[in-house]
Amino acid sequence: MKAKLLKLKRLSREINDLNAAATVLYWDQTTYMPPGGAETRARQIATLRRLAHEKLTHPAIGRLLNALRPYESGLPYDADDASLIRVVRRDYERAVRVPAAFMEELSNHTATLYEIWTKARPANDFAAVEPFLEKTLDLSRQLAGFFPGYEHIIDPLIDFADEGMKASMLRPLFCELHQHLVPMFQAITAQQAADDTCLLQRFPEEQQVAFGLEVIARFGFDFERGRQDKTHHPFTARFSSGDVRITTRVKEDDLGEALFSTMHEAGHALYEQGIRRDLEGTPLARGTSSGMHESQSRLWENLVGRSRGFWRFFYLRLQTAFPQQLASVPFDVFFRAINKVKPSLIRTNADEVTYNLHVIIRFDLELALLEGRLLVRDLPEAWRERYKADLGMMPPDDREGVLQDVHWYSGVIGGEFQGYALGNIMSAQLFEAAVGAHPEIPPELEQGKFGTLHNWLKDEIYQYGCKYTASELIERATGAPLNIEPYIRYLRAKYGELYRL
Amino acid sequence: MKAKLLKLKRLSREINDLNAAATVLYWDQTTYMPPGGAETRARQIATLRRLAHEKLTHPAIGRLLNALRPYESGLPYDADDASLIRVVRRDYERAVRVPAAFMEELSNHTATLYEIWTKARPANDFAAVEPFLEKTLDLSRQLAGFFPGYEHIIDPLIDFADEGMKASMLRPLFCELHQHLVPMFQAITAQQAADDTCLLQRFPEEQQVAFGLEVIARFGFDFERGRQDKTHHPFTARFSSGDVRITTRVKEDDLGEALFSTMHEAGHALYEQGIRRDLEGTPLARGTSSGMHESQSRLWENLVGRSRGFWRFFYLRLQTAFPQQLASVPFDVFFRAINKVKPSLIRTNADEVTYNLHVIIRFDLELALLEGRLLVRDLPEAWRERYKADLGMMPPDDREGVLQDVHWYSGVIGGEFQGYALGNIMSAQLFEAAVGAHPEIPPELEQGKFGTLHNWLKDEIYQYGCKYTASELIERATGAPLNIEPYIRYLRAKYGELYRL
Repeated sequence: MKAKLLKLKRLSREINDLNAAATVLYWDQTTYMPPGGAETRARQIATLRRLAHEKLTHPAIGRLLNALRPYESGLPYDADDASLIRVVRRDYERAVRVPAAFMEELSNHTATLYEIWTKARPANDFAAVEPFLEKTLDLSRQLAGFFPGYEHIIDPLIDFADEGMKASMLRPLFCELHQHLVPMFQAITAQQAADDTCLLQRFPEEQQVAFGLEVIARFGFDFERGRQDKTHHPFTARFSSGDVRITTRVKEDDLGEALFSTMHEAGHALYEQGIRRDLEGTPLARGTSSGMHESQSRLWENLVGRSRGFWRFFYLRLQTAFPQQLASVPFDVFFRAINKVKPSLIRTNADEVTYNLHVIIRFDLELALLEGRLLVRDLPEAWRERYKADLGMMPPDDREGVLQDVHWYSGVIGGEFQGYALGNIMSAQLFEAAVGAHPEIPPELEQGKFGTLHNWLKDEIYQYGCKYTASELIERATGAPLNIEPYIRYLRAKYGELYRL
Repeated sequence: MKAKLLKLKRLSREINDLNAAATVLYWDQTTYMPPGGAETRARQIATLRRLAHEKLTHPAIGRLLNALRPYESGLPYDADDASLIRVVRRDYERAVRVPAAFMEELSNHTATLYEIWTKARPANDFAAVEPFLEKTLDLSRQLAGFFPGYEHIIDPLIDFADEGMKASMLRPLFCELHQHLVPMFQAITAQQAADDTCLLQRFPEEQQVAFGLEVIARFGFDFERGRQDKTHHPFTARFSSGDVRITTRVKEDDLGEALFSTMHEAGHALYEQGIRRDLEGTPLARGTSSGMHESQSRLWENLVGRSRGFWRFFYLRLQTAFPQQLASVPFDVFFRAINKVKPSLIRTNADEVTYNLHVIIRFDLELALLEGRLLVRDLPEAWRERYKADLGMMPPDDREGVLQDVHWYSGVIGGEFQGYALGNIMSAQLFEAAVGAHPEIPPELEQGKFGTLHNWLKDEIYQYGCKYTASELIERATGAPLNIEPYIRYLRAKYGELYRL
């Protein structure tokens, strides 16, 4: 039995190494690769991913998993070996249920659509993507169909990213959230908007980068086991437990861009750096879900990085780094500027209060499309109506409407957007539990100390990798199931004070 | 038959992609990787190399090669398909003859010895490496033994890097070279040494890098299909025909370091960038041998980069980049400084005249070790004697003696050093042929124009990748077999004038 387990670990490590190599190649592609490398690089990454998939779906894995069942059932649920076998089985079963020919068709189709979308978006040409998006919808349904027995057709798609989450659970959660957010947002926008011109001066790149690095070093980002480089669309990449990298982009005319993006990616990276080192090379050594990952990026970006306590420590430092720009800007003006709430059309620019409205619109449209209640050709109009209803703004064209996000044009419809809202909800639930366990956290933030918070998150969440699901971790760490109360309390307290609601 | 050929190409491309990925991971390891990534990175690279080796030695390749024999024999030798089948067969036969268990033993042993050497060298402790080096010698003989039928035991080892070259051919070539070099070197060192203090001032890194990049851009290095980064030990890495990278290191107190290293690596890169684009992903898309590769780095570094004509164009530019340091340094003083000949103990610092003496010493010692005429325990003494005899200097300790080069401590004994001398010999033979065909090349160099030379090299050498062996290319390009005459003529002319011999 030991030999079989060792063999399973060895095969898992090979799969891990192939995927990690693909990630290095992707990181290089988006940071340093010269333009001439593009074509072959795409093929090289595809080769590595395909070989990893072939190894994962090899019958030898199935045989080992079967042979290991008796051993597994004799172990406690949270034993490392039991968790390893469970996670490999989950990955294996997900992979083998989808025929290779379908995967290839899907992958070719999404590559084609992505190319078309990159041209259709600037041209405001939804008609160009429409027939392809219909095919995407068809393929998305087919993909779900390989996992029969679901309650809702979106459930298998959600399960890839946020295991165990279902439409039947997310719909009421998001509905409740929506009911809180809309009046809050309306009450805020009825008042005069915050003045954020202090952020829109000229801030030289070098000082911006230096300040961001100082902040995340204090968070606990380990530069011996990571680094930051520049790219177009920031992301975090894990190559191993000893090498977790973040990327950022800098706008010299907008101080918020790099600063909050750096904290956001650092949150993802703290999670990955915090996974138990001895899980390295096993399939347990990764964040457990999209939502949980996003909870960490949002916690460090927003609950910490946009908090009054954080800036009580850092604002003087920021003024020192940018005396010409900020010396005469009072604390409260700056603090309101970084927490400005305003209706907007673009999800990625949205503030804390409106962000989830953008996400819920997309989630609802996905449900409607997958259920057949909405046709692809009616999608742009449905999008506009929802924006008018929820955010009081109608996109002037599809560039700022249905064509804005890459997701539907580079993958399936369904399964990705829910993670963003889940992340926000979880971030507040976890932060509240951390402060409950350690009331010294808020005063520590005011001193630029993040160790107690960071350690609590490591102990309760990070260290486990994907041994537990997000729901399990939330229950263990907070003593309650996932719920929106802490998030609503957090928004009420913060924005209630800022806007005297 | 077409289907079989396509399958062979597909499998070759997979092997190519795995090896290219390993090269990207290695490049990252030596340029940007944080220290924490080291341990896992070594394993990831090893996994990729192992999977590539498994694919290359898979019986499916052998069956395809057999099935393709009739097709191959109906094609001309230099047809692309014939060349592809020939090169895959060579790679396959080399790989399958060596048992996997032996490869693993060798690889574990060399990894161990390398670790020991990194400590033994600074400690001047040959005794620490001696027993391991004996095992390396034993393994080197065993490796050669998997290729029976050789004339000399070093021949199979040489064949890995410089296909078709043999001791019986190299010994007389190097002997003749040695007979020319020693008196030339003695005549030069009997005179007063050149004054190179002008190179040993302080030269800020940024300007050094900018100047180097300007030079290689004029050579024809394509920055759309390559880039330069910093590392400890400069090298060139090919990821694809569209992505060939060089690395460099800068010493702010020695202008020669980065400048000539950049030109050297750019020579390697021009070769790789010049391979026919449509060979991308096939095993033909690589330089044909160590010697031929080194001929290109040395041609651009020395025959071009240390020539009077080159500096007639570039010296004023260099003075403009470093006015404080060089404005008052006359051309001839600078030119003698970069071509200073002096006896030295370290191969990598050696000038054009003495460099091959360092190489020939190592090659002769390898022959003696492999033939059993020299014992590993007597190697340090034999090293000292040869340095005394050939260069008139005795290393004060083994750090500057037998412990200096990484080669024997990270691989087998035999098969690597000959390429350095072959490269020098070939560089002059090719350059002479280029100038013979295009007498306008020397005057063009004086105008900073390198296109005629670069195009001739592309047409005669680079484009073919490894379709032809180095010997075949030399004959095709120069009309003569490999010989030292052009190299001796080149050194005589250049150093005869510099030192009035």
